[in-house]
Amino acid sequence: MKKIVVMGGGTGTYTVLKGLKKYPVQLSAIVAMTDDGGSSGILRDELGVLPPGDIRQCFVALSQSSEVMRELFNYRFSKGSLKGHNLGNLLISALEKMEGGLDKALIKLHKILALEGEVIPVTLNKAKLLAELTNGKILFGEHEITGCKLLKKYPLRRIFLQPKATINPRALSVIKAADLVIIGPGNLYSSLVPLFLVGGAASALKQTKAKILYNVNLMTKRGQTDSFSVFDFVQIIENYLGKNVIDYALFNIARPEIGLLKKYAQEGELVRIPQKKNFKKGAKIFMGKHLLSKEIYEQKKGDLLKRTLIRHDSNKLAKEIMKIIA
Amino acid sequence: MKKIVVMGGGTGTYTVLKGLKKYPVQLSAIVAMTDDGGSSGILRDELGVLPPGDIRQCFVALSQSSEVMRELFNYRFSKGSLKGHNLGNLLISALEKMEGGLDKALIKLHKILALEGEVIPVTLNKAKLLAELTNGKILFGEHEITGCKLLKKYPLRRIFLQPKATINPRALSVIKAADLVIIGPGNLYSSLVPLFLVGGAASALKQTKAKILYNVNLMTKRGQTDSFSVFDFVQIIENYLGKNVIDYALFNIARPEIGLLKKYAQEGELVRIPQKKNFKKGAKIFMGKHLLSKEIYEQKKGDLLKRTLIRHDSNKLAKEIMKIIA
Repeated sequence: MKKIVVMGGGTGTYTVLKGLKKYPVQLSAIVAMTDDGGSSGILRDELGVLPPGDIRQCFVALSQSSEVMRELFNYRFSKGSLKGHNLGNLLISALEKMEGGLDKALIKLHKILALEGEVIPVTLNKAKLLAELTNGKILFGEHEITGCKLLKKYPLRRIFLQPKATINPRALSVIKAADLVIIGPGNLYSSLVPLFLVGGAASALKQTKAKILYNVNLMTKRGQTDSFSVFDFVQIIENYLGKNVIDYALFNIARPEIGLLKKYAQEGELVRIPQKKNFKKGAKIFMGKHLLSKEIYEQKKGDLLKRTLIRHDSNKLAKEIMKIIA
Repeated sequence: MKKIVVMGGGTGTYTVLKGLKKYPVQLSAIVAMTDDGGSSGILRDELGVLPPGDIRQCFVALSQSSEVMRELFNYRFSKGSLKGHNLGNLLISALEKMEGGLDKALIKLHKILALEGEVIPVTLNKAKLLAELTNGKILFGEHEITGCKLLKKYPLRRIFLQPKATINPRALSVIKAADLVIIGPGNLYSSLVPLFLVGGAASALKQTKAKILYNVNLMTKRGQTDSFSVFDFVQIIENYLGKNVIDYALFNIARPEIGLLKKYAQEGELVRIPQKKNFKKGAKIFMGKHLLSKEIYEQKKGDLLKRTLIRHDSNKLAKEIMKIIA
């Protein structure tokens, strides 16, 4: 059975896992630990735990449990002092406090909930994501970076973790043993690059015998990836991992519905559809024509964060991935 | 298999259930829905749910699940905006919101968690417990009644529910079918009497063929049961249920450790140990010599409410009960 490692966090990783779990593969999810917005941010600040939100999403994606259990895990309080918290986030954080560590908490959680795979935090260190803008200003935390309006004028100069973080040994061992490592989809600077900033992560990806596939983002992001082509996305990743570490880049060339596009354009987020003639010779780049989901994603009541509504279709994405590695 | 119904809420009911579940009996717990202090109070106010705290305690008592699951259910956040909330309370409230009712929520919860018995809210109506003092002042809510310093000077004149509440049909049916109904232990005015104020509850207890056993409280409570004898406790209950409805009263005659007694005396709570010569002729009253727990109960970090530290021993209590109904 092929061993597939999916790296990222949040909705993109959820989508990949949900699609791939229908195939006979052995799945692990390595999750970024720099989320500090919404419910996860409050729990980090107030309880001193690692951010549970992305862990929760991966658990839900891989869960064999009943629909009720999944719904409960994702249930988001919409009122009062609990507003914006997911029950699953609270459960993971409570377990981390009880067990004295997220690693120990996750061992227990894997036992309680029947899971078709393993969820692994990329690091067990509590590090914050910091960014320096071209005007010298330092942004503290992923949430501040994502929401910063200065980014349009002063793009990112560099991003880094503070304090330094080291790769979780369990993450290292699944990367070593993998046949395929999938990066993304996910926000380039706030979800993916933070994975490679963790000490030992980039070198593990360089050294593994596994093929590396990058699911290129559907959209660009204002101040971070403005006017990026597919190649630019790939290049940024390779700046951190090393040249030619990425074996495959998979991207969408279907155009989303015009109303949605307009809505995104207002936020400075654009769809980039590269032209074949621009492809570098020999680049193993795959176009997925139908990667867009037709489902309608609605903003959920009580959600503290904006959610992207243009999404990958998990089944189509998984099918393309399985074709590539067949 | 004998059908036993335990009525109450909170620690006392937890203790009875935990002891009885070791015997081959069919257990149901009927839980008061007037708790409005601590975590339950916040959830009532903020989410408009029924109070989950006592339901949670009964679930933990009857749970077959792993130790981790029970610990998680009881896990109490000690910091930040979640301070004082139990994870189990949040789970029950989330499920009530998801399912659109506590009755539906509990059906799901019984499926998720393996339970040796059934937990039933005495009513599905959201009623508050009100009390009128002898000076005419009205106290709103169980928590206000329990904490009221005026009670010493102006005892309770009457307590009532507002708005009126009707018995949950499921509670009615288990009382009808029971062989034994156990009332308490529990705070007389804030946990037990509120059960009988629910429309249909007192008449169900009058009409059932089941024997009725009352676990008399270990201590008196300032402003509520000052200088109460065991007979006074029984009489108050029978004021609500009707004369001679109680078949057995079980009470403790072991003296707690002197240091604890002093601590309680400061709060106006005293141990009442009745003399046998005072017993009414023919009253089916049983003394349990060793009903006190030797375990040390510590105030838990983050607990919003004071917890009584003189407790029944669940095994000894269950043994006495089983002797009585043998």
